[in-house]
Amino acid sequence: MDHRTEIADLGEFGLIEHLTQNIELQNASSVLGVGDDAAVIDHFGKQTVVTTDLLLEGVHFDLAYTPLRHLGYKSVIVNLSDVYAMNATPTQITVSIGISNRFSLEAIDEFYEGVYAACDKYGVDLVGGDTCSSQKGFIISVTAIGEVATDKFVKRSTAQIGDLLCCSGDLGAAYVGLLFLEREKQIYLESPQVQPDLEGEQYVIGRLLKPEAQKNTIDFFEASKLIPTAMMDVSDGLSSEILHICKQSGVGCTVYEEKLPIHEEMKRAAFKFEIDPTACALSGGEDYELLFTIAQNDYDKLVLNEQISVIGHITDPVEGRHIVTKGGNKHAITAQGWNAFK
Amino acid sequence: MDHRTEIADLGEFGLIEHLTQNIELQNASSVLGVGDDAAVIDHFGKQTVVTTDLLLEGVHFDLAYTPLRHLGYKSVIVNLSDVYAMNATPTQITVSIGISNRFSLEAIDEFYEGVYAACDKYGVDLVGGDTCSSQKGFIISVTAIGEVATDKFVKRSTAQIGDLLCCSGDLGAAYVGLLFLEREKQIYLESPQVQPDLEGEQYVIGRLLKPEAQKNTIDFFEASKLIPTAMMDVSDGLSSEILHICKQSGVGCTVYEEKLPIHEEMKRAAFKFEIDPTACALSGGEDYELLFTIAQNDYDKLVLNEQISVIGHITDPVEGRHIVTKGGNKHAITAQGWNAFK
Repeated sequence: MDHRTEIADLGEFGLIEHLTQNIELQNASSVLGVGDDAAVIDHFGKQTVVTTDLLLEGVHFDLAYTPLRHLGYKSVIVNLSDVYAMNATPTQITVSIGISNRFSLEAIDEFYEGVYAACDKYGVDLVGGDTCSSQKGFIISVTAIGEVATDKFVKRSTAQIGDLLCCSGDLGAAYVGLLFLEREKQIYLESPQVQPDLEGEQYVIGRLLKPEAQKNTIDFFEASKLIPTAMMDVSDGLSSEILHICKQSGVGCTVYEEKLPIHEEMKRAAFKFEIDPTACALSGGEDYELLFTIAQNDYDKLVLNEQISVIGHITDPVEGRHIVTKGGNKHAITAQGWNAFK
Repeated sequence: MDHRTEIADLGEFGLIEHLTQNIELQNASSVLGVGDDAAVIDHFGKQTVVTTDLLLEGVHFDLAYTPLRHLGYKSVIVNLSDVYAMNATPTQITVSIGISNRFSLEAIDEFYEGVYAACDKYGVDLVGGDTCSSQKGFIISVTAIGEVATDKFVKRSTAQIGDLLCCSGDLGAAYVGLLFLEREKQIYLESPQVQPDLEGEQYVIGRLLKPEAQKNTIDFFEASKLIPTAMMDVSDGLSSEILHICKQSGVGCTVYEEKLPIHEEMKRAAFKFEIDPTACALSGGEDYELLFTIAQNDYDKLVLNEQISVIGHITDPVEGRHIVTKGGNKHAITAQGWNAFK
């Protein structure tokens, strides 16, 4: 190799784009490949959705403050979230783990208790996996499979000018939960005798450690005969996801700060760290809410659902991608999201 | 946790059995779950097969002697092998990688060249994946999806008394290839100026570094209207796989040493290490051949295929699981296979 390009210079999305730019799908059943929350495979009347995530100790989770049962639960949820983000229903998962001899069977059992709890709650079957030893750290790879009626799957790339930009639930709490846990970990490392002070922060910590996937939102779409024009889940942070939808759809957008769904508990907790709740909502990540666009005509179908916020609208691409602050200023949206390689 | 059970005391298969003993499948589409080469999912007229494997640097591969291009190729092959082992045709894969900043983009490109080469050769589409940074080492997780006509999939648990036990290709060469590469690595570490001496060992080294999956064998079954009664791929070693089929089918078997398919190059290479080629064939692993059983009535369909060897037959379970040596002695078959946790 004559030349060395650092992965960090591309970032995760640049790397994926680079690696997948020349793919040509060979099987007629491969309806949608790389570049969305999940792939879509045609199966004679219904379509199969497939998605996979790799979770690494020290990168995606810290066992110092992550109970293994929660970790098992969350490992499933983050994948189900990608299936729901296609407007599909998850049906099966596979779970592979790599574990060092630091882990006992009882520890692995706790992890799987969480996996099975998520399977039970979401009606999903664990149908396979792989188990091997690792030299260091806990490695988790989950693949989720789901189904969707033909052509009801929703991509990221199909938002239309004039559509409303919407979001389920509330944003930023998981990030603030992480700040608390990281702070307590530091205190513990410096003074092991000090008891953790997480009193009253159950909401934000729960959002980090035990997120849920948006089955309710997908069920609501079905019941309301509403099909979003574009959709993805919020894992890296709202700003980053908005830019994905805009870029892949070739559109602009305007988002209103005052419309961002922020939970009172998150706001209170953010102020303890003297940080701006809006910044947490925009850049926090790990919310596992759904970000989606709908035709304006469908607005009436939304109004009775208190779990869904209209946060802006899709514009012509020449208008750019902006957020209008409560003070009336307009700023370009930038992805402060997580770059795994920096 | 009051009690600590070491994972090593269970071994990989004991651990999987332990973790999956209480699974009850909830979705009607989950035809076959954990416990075979792949899961089977019903999709309205055809069935979908799903399998996944986790490959870890330092555990499953050593980059000191594994070119990244070969590693990419092999990562796909080991999963396709599991799909073929269900008598199914692979159609899609997802590939997730975790990489440390030790790897350049050029290195990752080499890996993906191998992935795409395998996709091309086997007519499979790469439809998704995940890319993240790892703190240490190269982590690969591949999931393969395939399809099979309803009820044509072949499990491990359905071998019948009287069936012939058969194997594709030849066995043990990959293991001997590994011995050469490990020996040269040691010499290099001790005396970096010495050039590696792998002259004439292309066959065994090729079997390790660039295995192929048994598409030809599955195509032959289709063309011959032959459906094996039970099947699995040989990844951990022939003995280990024979015991899986016998245990899951509740049967015994007799295998004949003189019938084991051993390549002349493997035999010659094994003698250089003063080891018994039969032991390599029985316990080597990583052959990615197919081990299967057929009804005696189907024997005529096999005779013209030189790639398939009949190595024994299935017996009543009370007769145990034995190998008859060339000298006429009878030994119980034991799994010397790989225990990932020791």
